[in-house]
Amino acid sequence: MARSRSLARARGPRREGVSRSIDPRVQSSERLLDATAELLGEHSAIDVSLSEIARRSGLNSALVKYYFGNKEGLLLALLKRDAERAMGALDHLLAMQVTAAHKLKIHISGIINAYFRSPYLNRLIHHLIESGGQESSRAVTSMFVEPMLAAYKAIIDQGVAEGSLRPTDPALLYFSLVGACDHIFHAAYSVRSALGETQITEEIKQRYIAHVTEVHLNGLLASRKG
Amino acid sequence: MARSRSLARARGPRREGVSRSIDPRVQSSERLLDATAELLGEHSAIDVSLSEIARRSGLNSALVKYYFGNKEGLLLALLKRDAERAMGALDHLLAMQVTAAHKLKIHISGIINAYFRSPYLNRLIHHLIESGGQESSRAVTSMFVEPMLAAYKAIIDQGVAEGSLRPTDPALLYFSLVGACDHIFHAAYSVRSALGETQITEEIKQRYIAHVTEVHLNGLLASRKG
Repeated sequence: MARSRSLARARGPRREGVSRSIDPRVQSSERLLDATAELLGEHSAIDVSLSEIARRSGLNSALVKYYFGNKEGLLLALLKRDAERAMGALDHLLAMQVTAAHKLKIHISGIINAYFRSPYLNRLIHHLIESGGQESSRAVTSMFVEPMLAAYKAIIDQGVAEGSLRPTDPALLYFSLVGACDHIFHAAYSVRSALGETQITEEIKQRYIAHVTEVHLNGLLASRKG
Repeated sequence: MARSRSLARARGPRREGVSRSIDPRVQSSERLLDATAELLGEHSAIDVSLSEIARRSGLNSALVKYYFGNKEGLLLALLKRDAERAMGALDHLLAMQVTAAHKLKIHISGIINAYFRSPYLNRLIHHLIESGGQESSRAVTSMFVEPMLAAYKAIIDQGVAEGSLRPTDPALLYFSLVGACDHIFHAAYSVRSALGETQITEEIKQRYIAHVTEVHLNGLLASRKG
C-alpha cells in the first residue's frame, strides 16, 4: 500500500505542507521553481532548504539535482525565469510608440509589480552574486543589470531628444529608481510602523506606484518654459 | 617572555590583521565597535566572526562577552552608535530655520554620506530585525524607523504650509527616498557594470547626491503657478 503512494508524498512529514497553488499537472521542474518562489516570498532571507522545497512541491528533493544540479542551480533558474518575464516586458516597452515619460511611467509600475509578485528578487540577485561564484555573478549581471542599464539609456536619450526629460545619468537613475521601487519590499519590517499593515497589500502597492511615479516623473521632466 | 605579550596579540594568528586605523588608546569597547564596523564595511553580508573582530581590534574576543553579552549585543551597540550620530543630525536639521526644501536637500546629502561611511547600515538593520528577536526588532524600530518617519512628516508639513512642497505621504517618501539613497551601496555588485568602478568613490558619491537631490527636489516641489 505505502508503495503506491508517490515517494514525494511519503517523504513529506506533513501532507498539508504541499501548496495548493502548485499545480501537480505542470512539469516537475516548473513545480520545483514554483515551490521555491513561494517559499522565498514567505521567508525574509534566502534560507530555504531542499527538504522544504520538496515538501512544498510534493516532489522528491533528488529531482533538484536531476534538473538543476544543486540548490544554487535551482535559484539561478528561478531568477532566470523571473528575468525572462521582466526583460521581455522591458523589450516590449522600449518598442512602444509612446513618449519617454510614458515609458518611464509604465516601467515604474512594472518594476513595483514585479517586486510585489516576487519580493525575493533583489535578495536572490544579491545572494547569487555574493555567494554564487563568478559564473552566477556574470549570469545575473547579463540577465538583469545590463539590459536595465541599456533600457534606461534608451528611455533618457529618447526623452532628451523629445525635449520631455532632462539629461540624467542612466546608471545613477538605475540605482535610485530600482532602490526606490524595491525598498518597501526589502524593508518589510518597517511596514508595520510606517503604514500600520503587517504586509504590503494591493492598495499599498497601488499607492506606492502612484507615489514613486509622481516623484520620478516630476523629478525627471524637463522644466517647462516660462 | 611569551607571557609579557598581551593575550590579544598572542591570539591573533597574523599580526598584520590588526587595523592601523583602530586607535589602541581608545576604550576597548569602542575599539571592538570600530573593528566590527570596519569588517562589516568590507564584507557584503553580516558574517563577521568574533575571532575576526578580535584580530582586527587587537583585543581578546572574550571582551565582546564582557561588554556586549554576545555578538548580537555587539551588533546592536554598533547600530545604536550609528543611530545616535544620524538621529542627532536629524534633530539638528529639524530645528534649523530654513525652508523645507532646503532641509530635504541637507537630509539627502546626510543620508547618502551615512551610507558611504557605514555601508553596512541597512544590512545590519535588516539582520537585527530578522534574526535578532523581538527585543532587537523593537530597539531598531525605535532607533531608526520612528524618528525618520516623524522627521519626514515634519518636513512635509512645513513644506506644504510654506507652499513649497506638494502634499506627500511621509511613510511612502520614507521608503522611496531611503531605498534610493541606499541601493547604490547595497547593490555594490552592479557598480562595476554601471559605473566602471569596483567601489563607490568620493566622486561617484557626490554625483549620486546631486542626482537623488535633483530628482527628489524637483519631484516634490509644488508646481509653480502659470
